[in-house]
Amino acid sequence: MTTASTDPATCHPGSPSPGHLCMPEDARKRAARRLKIARGHLDSIVAMLEKEDAYCVDVLRQIKAVQGALSGAGEVVLRGHLEAHVATASTRGDSVEIVEELMEALKYT
Amino acid sequence: MTTASTDPATCHPGSPSPGHLCMPEDARKRAARRLKIARGHLDSIVAMLEKEDAYCVDVLRQIKAVQGALSGAGEVVLRGHLEAHVATASTRGDSVEIVEELMEALKYT
Amino acid sequence: MTTASTDPATCHPGSPSPGHLCMPEDARKRAARRLKIARGHLDSIVAMLEKEDAYCVDVLRQIKAVQGALSGAGEVVLRGHLEAHVATASTRGDSVEIVEELMEALKYT
Amino acid sequence: MTTASTDPATCHPGSPSPGHLCMPEDARKRAARRLKIARGHLDSIVAMLEKEDAYCVDVLRQIKAVQGALSGAGEVVLRGHLEAHVATASTRGDSVEIVEELMEALKYT
Repeated sequence: MTTASTDPATCHPGSPSPGHLCMPEDARKRAARRLKIARGHLDSIVAMLEKEDAYCVDVLRQIKAVQGALSGAGEVVLRGHLEAHVATASTRGDSVEIVEELMEALKYT
Repeated sequence: MTTASTDPATCHPGSPSPGHLCMPEDARKRAARRLKIARGHLDSIVAMLEKEDAYCVDVLRQIKAVQGALSGAGEVVLRGHLEAHVATASTRGDSVEIVEELMEALKYT
Repeated sequence: MTTASTDPATCHPGSPSPGHLCMPEDARKRAARRLKIARGHLDSIVAMLEKEDAYCVDVLRQIKAVQGALSGAGEVVLRGHLEAHVATASTRGDSVEIVEELMEALKYT
Repeated sequence: MTTASTDPATCHPGSPSPGHLCMPEDARKRAARRLKIARGHLDSIVAMLEKEDAYCVDVLRQIKAVQGALSGAGEVVLRGHLEAHVATASTRGDSVEIVEELMEALKYT
């Protein structure tokens, strides 16, 4: 009954889509936390751009910083996916599909 | 008197920091517009992560999409900077400094 | 006895390091082919740079093309690794280590 | 007569294409040196892939190292281009074209 919570690859019993793989809760919370920080940072760049004396290189640096934060969030999600879903694929029997799906998602970096 | 508005490299006369290079207004507005769209997209990823059935690969794809939007905003800013400030550097006599500053900012892609 | 050749995660019996995971042969050959093409391309950039009238933007474009070829080779290797070694990790019991190792290698993109 | 060698944006007098912008000699030599090192590194990866016990993650790391070397060479070329050709564009009167050309070349990173 509570096995779901110990198997990170399985959705919680009450999940709206029980048949599909769900993100490990820890990764989900950590990624959300990082994305909220990135959003706050993005707010401050938008505010910066409202001022007439914004300087291009300052804005570029801030955009890069947000991109770094998003990469960090992406790493959290990727690591969770590899551990919970890819590393267990041969047991489930969907290795080819899960690798194909991941390669496709990683392509457009 | 109104030369400032025709020279994109010069801040508007009433600018708080008249001695420094200011972002061309067009680039500033276009970058802001793109960053606001990216922020909305980021909000929707944060909302997605609040649901227990979020799926890693969907989240990865959305994060990549926001990174693409940020790259687009960065391109707008870079192009404005090159046209307004780098292309005019030898006239101002600060080529070495402005190139060094830009290379440093581009480094951490 | 010949199971090794059907299991892409296992080195060939006569391999110098039988205890360690070996790259699937197909990925190995395809990656080598792509890297040889990249090397030929790199040769032509070096030759281009020997001429006094080389133009910066042409060189930049050629360097980007080689980087694209290397990314393609990297994708072949990554896909082979995910299918042969990561997707089978929970069966071997080394999921944490193999994911950690991969995340570390992907970091410096 | 020897002005060509002091103006990095101008090709040497005997250049086959005197009307066009030439890469500063220093950048040309430094980029060539780095690309030769990258080529040697690439050779060693090809050799590595000829062995049956090549390990995916080792190959991935080596490919990333070569990509880093190519990025370094690209930075040398970009810096030379910005200093010699972009920073002088408003004087020549081709700012729009030279920025457009560079943005296009940088796009496919």
